[in-house]
Amino acid sequence: MERPLIFVSNDDGYAAKGINVLIEVLMEFGDVVAVAPHTGRSGKGCSITSEVPVNVWNISRKPGLEVYACTGTPVDCVKVAFDAVLTRRPVLVVGGINHGDNSAVNAHYSGTMGVVLEGCMKGVPSVAFSLCSHDADADFSNTIPVIRRVVSEVLQRGLPTGSCLNVNFPDVPSYAGIKVCRQACGEWTNEWEGHNHPRGGKWYWLTGEFSCSESDPDCDRIALDNGYVAITPTKIDFTDYALLDAMKQWNL
Amino acid sequence: MERPLIFVSNDDGYAAKGINVLIEVLMEFGDVVAVAPHTGRSGKGCSITSEVPVNVWNISRKPGLEVYACTGTPVDCVKVAFDAVLTRRPVLVVGGINHGDNSAVNAHYSGTMGVVLEGCMKGVPSVAFSLCSHDADADFSNTIPVIRRVVSEVLQRGLPTGSCLNVNFPDVPSYAGIKVCRQACGEWTNEWEGHNHPRGGKWYWLTGEFSCSESDPDCDRIALDNGYVAITPTKIDFTDYALLDAMKQWNL
Repeated sequence: MERPLIFVSNDDGYAAKGINVLIEVLMEFGDVVAVAPHTGRSGKGCSITSEVPVNVWNISRKPGLEVYACTGTPVDCVKVAFDAVLTRRPVLVVGGINHGDNSAVNAHYSGTMGVVLEGCMKGVPSVAFSLCSHDADADFSNTIPVIRRVVSEVLQRGLPTGSCLNVNFPDVPSYAGIKVCRQACGEWTNEWEGHNHPRGGKWYWLTGEFSCSESDPDCDRIALDNGYVAITPTKIDFTDYALLDAMKQWNL
Repeated sequence: MERPLIFVSNDDGYAAKGINVLIEVLMEFGDVVAVAPHTGRSGKGCSITSEVPVNVWNISRKPGLEVYACTGTPVDCVKVAFDAVLTRRPVLVVGGINHGDNSAVNAHYSGTMGVVLEGCMKGVPSVAFSLCSHDADADFSNTIPVIRRVVSEVLQRGLPTGSCLNVNFPDVPSYAGIKVCRQACGEWTNEWEGHNHPRGGKWYWLTGEFSCSESDPDCDRIALDNGYVAITPTKIDFTDYALLDAMKQWNL
């Protein structure tokens, strides 16, 4: 009998450690096809490539696993996979394991979440995994049993149409537990470092500090600070229904 | 007395017709500073630039208006403006007028919505305007009285913290009215056009058709089809609270 198909992508590129750890775990559950950026595409959010064409090519092939590289964004990888690479429909779309935190409002900037929102738009249950460490050689071993448990539950239960999961792991020796959370508020400050260009003018490198004013233990950023794995259920539909009602009183 | 400051950006670039129409209208309400991409950056969503530095430079200056170009994404434009260009805090962040539809799930891909979500994260009332026409010389004249009305209401009433507005105009000779909407579902299909590269391999251009299975007149995509201006109140927080509750029964 054919094993179910699981599609994987990320924003750190097909060669990153995180995606390769993830692929190993997911191969326990089914056949895996990965189409991932040929190089790091962090911070690409849900961006798509319309100004140039994208290329996709096979990197490796073995029983139960095919890996492709793509010159596009993480979202492009999902789109091109569904249209031109996959020969059958996946039961699951998985993003990660990202090298770096995608909790709180950072979900909007995240290419890993881009993968998962796109999978979700295509009607497939989709889960993002991220570890709060940017280290290229980060230790992902603690994440593995939790990934197994989350994937197993999602495969059994499914996810509501239009909803996906954003799972973030704290970078700690052992987890306090697993917490289902809401997305924390927060703001980036001191975001740029200005440098004079040798031929004149000023150039700015994106940097900055993320500050979260929250203290609620049930928001993802604080749960991570407290050593919990934070699972934030996330919707494609970001309509503000309360404001929608309130605006019926506006003079439009 | 100092006039209030309004910040403007877009994803079609500082030279696009849409942003220049918008600036003219907004100058009725206050001083305007625009920092916009130096060229078209459509479909960039909330992406940020971390792999290279960005440059920002002045294009023009006259009483009540300063225009800057920036090599970064739409979100970078907002970030660099707040850190390195603006000398006082704006009362409003406005994105647009986009050449093209940003309704339904397209809000996730939209650089114009990137501008507005970023303004919203910075705690400033933020509004995106988009016209359902990709024509570089589109006729924006019908949008102007509606922009005046929406801006006037937002300046008077403010917006809840963490919420912004996504305003889409149908490309029709006269509007059926203005409707406050929810974000429509929908899916892109046939997204890629494959071409053989002269030196081998296949390259794919992003294209495709957007299909919306909805018929509810109160969702933005259908409201536009019916000739209404669609205003979709949009939240930064895209937690699925119903799923959050349901997941308390999961075996995690």
